[in-house]
Amino acid sequence: MRIALAQLNYHIGDFESNVARIRSVIKKAKGEPADVVVFSELAVCGYPPRDFLEFDDFNSRSQKAILSIAKECHGIAAIVGAPSVNPFEKGKPLYNSAYFLAEGKIKAVFHKTLLPNYDVFDEYRYFEPNRMPYQVVEYKKYKFAVTICEDLWNITDDPLYVRNPMDELIKLEPDLVINIAASPFHYNQQGIRKDVLIRNAKKYKLPFFYLNHVGGQTELLFDGGSMVLGPDGSVFDELNYFEEDFRVYNLNDFIYKEKKENRQDAKTLSKIGLIHDALVMGIRDYFGKMDLKKAILGLSGGIDSAVTLVLAARALGSENVRAVLLPSRYSSEHSISDAVELADNLNVQHDIIPIDQAFSAFEDTLQPLFGELPFDITEENMQARARAVILMALSNKFGYILLNTSNKSEAAVGYGTLYGDMSGGLSVLGDVYKTQVYELAAYINRKKIIIPKNSIDKPPSAELRPGQKDSDSLPEYAILDDILYRYIELRKGPGDLVKEGFNETIVKRVLKLVNTSEYKRYQTPPILRVSPKAFGTGRRMPIVAKYLS
Amino acid sequence: MRIALAQLNYHIGDFESNVARIRSVIKKAKGEPADVVVFSELAVCGYPPRDFLEFDDFNSRSQKAILSIAKECHGIAAIVGAPSVNPFEKGKPLYNSAYFLAEGKIKAVFHKTLLPNYDVFDEYRYFEPNRMPYQVVEYKKYKFAVTICEDLWNITDDPLYVRNPMDELIKLEPDLVINIAASPFHYNQQGIRKDVLIRNAKKYKLPFFYLNHVGGQTELLFDGGSMVLGPDGSVFDELNYFEEDFRVYNLNDFIYKEKKENRQDAKTLSKIGLIHDALVMGIRDYFGKMDLKKAILGLSGGIDSAVTLVLAARALGSENVRAVLLPSRYSSEHSISDAVELADNLNVQHDIIPIDQAFSAFEDTLQPLFGELPFDITEENMQARARAVILMALSNKFGYILLNTSNKSEAAVGYGTLYGDMSGGLSVLGDVYKTQVYELAAYINRKKIIIPKNSIDKPPSAELRPGQKDSDSLPEYAILDDILYRYIELRKGPGDLVKEGFNETIVKRVLKLVNTSEYKRYQTPPILRVSPKAFGTGRRMPIVAKYLS
Repeated sequence: MRIALAQLNYHIGDFESNVARIRSVIKKAKGEPADVVVFSELAVCGYPPRDFLEFDDFNSRSQKAILSIAKECHGIAAIVGAPSVNPFEKGKPLYNSAYFLAEGKIKAVFHKTLLPNYDVFDEYRYFEPNRMPYQVVEYKKYKFAVTICEDLWNITDDPLYVRNPMDELIKLEPDLVINIAASPFHYNQQGIRKDVLIRNAKKYKLPFFYLNHVGGQTELLFDGGSMVLGPDGSVFDELNYFEEDFRVYNLNDFIYKEKKENRQDAKTLSKIGLIHDALVMGIRDYFGKMDLKKAILGLSGGIDSAVTLVLAARALGSENVRAVLLPSRYSSEHSISDAVELADNLNVQHDIIPIDQAFSAFEDTLQPLFGELPFDITEENMQARARAVILMALSNKFGYILLNTSNKSEAAVGYGTLYGDMSGGLSVLGDVYKTQVYELAAYINRKKIIIPKNSIDKPPSAELRPGQKDSDSLPEYAILDDILYRYIELRKGPGDLVKEGFNETIVKRVLKLVNTSEYKRYQTPPILRVSPKAFGTGRRMPIVAKYLS
Repeated sequence: MRIALAQLNYHIGDFESNVARIRSVIKKAKGEPADVVVFSELAVCGYPPRDFLEFDDFNSRSQKAILSIAKECHGIAAIVGAPSVNPFEKGKPLYNSAYFLAEGKIKAVFHKTLLPNYDVFDEYRYFEPNRMPYQVVEYKKYKFAVTICEDLWNITDDPLYVRNPMDELIKLEPDLVINIAASPFHYNQQGIRKDVLIRNAKKYKLPFFYLNHVGGQTELLFDGGSMVLGPDGSVFDELNYFEEDFRVYNLNDFIYKEKKENRQDAKTLSKIGLIHDALVMGIRDYFGKMDLKKAILGLSGGIDSAVTLVLAARALGSENVRAVLLPSRYSSEHSISDAVELADNLNVQHDIIPIDQAFSAFEDTLQPLFGELPFDITEENMQARARAVILMALSNKFGYILLNTSNKSEAAVGYGTLYGDMSGGLSVLGDVYKTQVYELAAYINRKKIIIPKNSIDKPPSAELRPGQKDSDSLPEYAILDDILYRYIELRKGPGDLVKEGFNETIVKRVLKLVNTSEYKRYQTPPILRVSPKAFGTGRRMPIVAKYLS
């Protein structure tokens, strides 16, 4: 029994291209030869299809796609993820299913039992859990247990679900387990995922073939890393991370046909290296799948826009990125020189467009209403917004997408201007705390200096008034990020934080800033997700509320 | 047995004020006298608490709140909604529960079985469904069946859930059914809700006491309308719509103590009247609960900003609303005069701030890069963005909240400028199609002309270039809205629409506009929800996708 794993990058809703790619990989697998080729969860429509699943038109295209793929399956079987229709009177209209296709037709359909509905997942919004008796499918004398992603995940000490599908499937004495998945990346996920699979293999003493999605889907970054495990729980092989891959295994000896040279191994990448690669993939796929090429961003001379520019140049090519320096009367000399140096290091086109004429025009226009009122946050925001108008004008005129350069610490405490520096089509660093942005800069500079030392070393400043520093309004980032991580990622309350030794006044102030900034984050661009708890679809907070605020 | 219904407006996360109000209403009910007083679903923490439910600190405050309310229950019982902890090893950590409080303590706890997880609902994200045997509670010789919102809703011909709690509860021979709810408004919901309750009362031949939330929670508008039904399915009484209410009923004769005069009856309000009242409540509660008073908006002379201004003045008082006219070189004379006339009719402060100096400054600043390139959408957007900068500056300087004036038709097809006219803290009309905005204007003008006739009669135009009309780039709104409603609210596909007689080219163009505008809507302010399918949390679409686009 030879099993091929096909780790592909799908485009949500693009049935034509998804089906064409699946069919061509089936042909390829047949040539290897392989007996069975495995594709990922909801492969035909892409993951996550979200509310497109409420459209009959969309679902009937999925059905047609499966039938068209089945026609390719002669002399080979394919396991492919797609929604299927719930034929019963009761319950939600769809299942999240795995089709076993062979002999030109649908040989069996398996439905997902455990539907993740936390963080970024909304599967119970669309799907009915499997309630039917479990089955295995026999093909070429091997009995396959086919499961879907979360179906293997209820194996922790604190189970989220009352059922565990493998406990029932094992009674049918399968020879191997296939799991098709759509398990998105965060910087701890690879370890967690591997642990879950090892626990399963050890508990059920079977070989496991795990096939994951790869590629960016707006904010969700799928890192691939499909895996083969032996019945003793040993990891026999891992497919590439952050890129497509295809390999064939012989079930009997687990010797795979072709050992790719130089393949990246997750184990050798540091956490910050993983974040780096994930972000580059996220930018690349956002642009690629939107059929866009060129990015623009405001380059301030600070570290956030510097790191964003490097990541964008790596994802899109230096020739497709444009940096704009937008100095105001409060910008320091070194900001301009640091920014120019970076653009030159990267060979990226840059322009210098002073905002003072626009800023002065707003001051003049508002003078009759503002009179002698003192300079305050209004004028600070006005500068940030004048910059956004210029960047968006360039974007509109020349077809660039504006990249947002805000980091997670700023987004958390609302240290940013709506319709100003919070603008953009995609937020690159919105899930990366400021202290992690420094780590990313160091990682980028690990072999040679790309980001000027001065951009890294100088105290962070928005430069919106004379001598302004971030630390005037915020705690030092080391403390701030520590509190934010515990509140946002770990969901600790104020009592816990004080017990852990943080200053009560600072804790209260930070939590209040976070909770009263929901209205700002509601209007942020989509944020590439690299942490276990990113702002965006995976963190849903009331805007109008009064809690720790 | 005398039962009091307490229909209150809660503040999410504000345990102190929610508990104080519940305790004071219990005292009042005792004085009536009443034997039992009923509060709504998740009353102590407010609905929807969203991801606050992931914080132990938040949940323990709910628990303390329940104990504090129980202490008030001597000589009276109270039924109060709150989360409760799942004591079992397996499953999600919380239940959505109804506490029966009496004799100073918790007498019984009932858990919700059917957890809505569609549209704006995410309950399965947080709660484990009840899996325990059902119970009734006996109090003063009456057996109470206590259910929570959705528990009564699986009575349709196409049931969404496999269980129906009332089918099991009825076997315990209860004397009456209490349902505590958080059922948000949309313009068809009151009829649907009443129908569901009547079906239940008729099927189970019991009196039903239905208690709903009231008040705005950011985009979700709870309309109250709690209800008492006889065992024959007749509606005995409805509490007020869109405001708090409190009434006491004698179970034996259903004669309520105090018949309020002039209370609004949902049946007498037209659909557009309901939308009007809902939007006014939504604005009022957004500001009230955020502890804000004053709104600002750009008044263009067109119908959208005119209707928004009227609604804002009704919600907040004319003295708390400020209208800003922001004419450009392309604004027509009548736009200014129409806007001034409306502001005067409403007695609202208005300012005229021309944007030409700011717009020219951007033109000059960008001249070195734009050269002789022709005027295009860039310059149109630049005007809209210059306006937003000015409005936000006034907002920042004087403490106004900017109201967004875009309608649902524009939001659907992306006819609006990000960081320009799409800005604002709250979108008032983002769930109201353009054709419905006309109906709202007519409704507002039904007794006397408030919105100038010219604002209503003239062809819609963004006035961002000479002679521009909406109909230059979009189909006529009557056709556009018809297609949008079928696609967005009814989830019809392109095939259905063509079968229904719409022009295929127009259908394709409109659907493509909708699907390629997701990136814009992702950054829109929260939209007051009045339809069965509003943009925002209840409609979740991929941004990067290729489907009908």
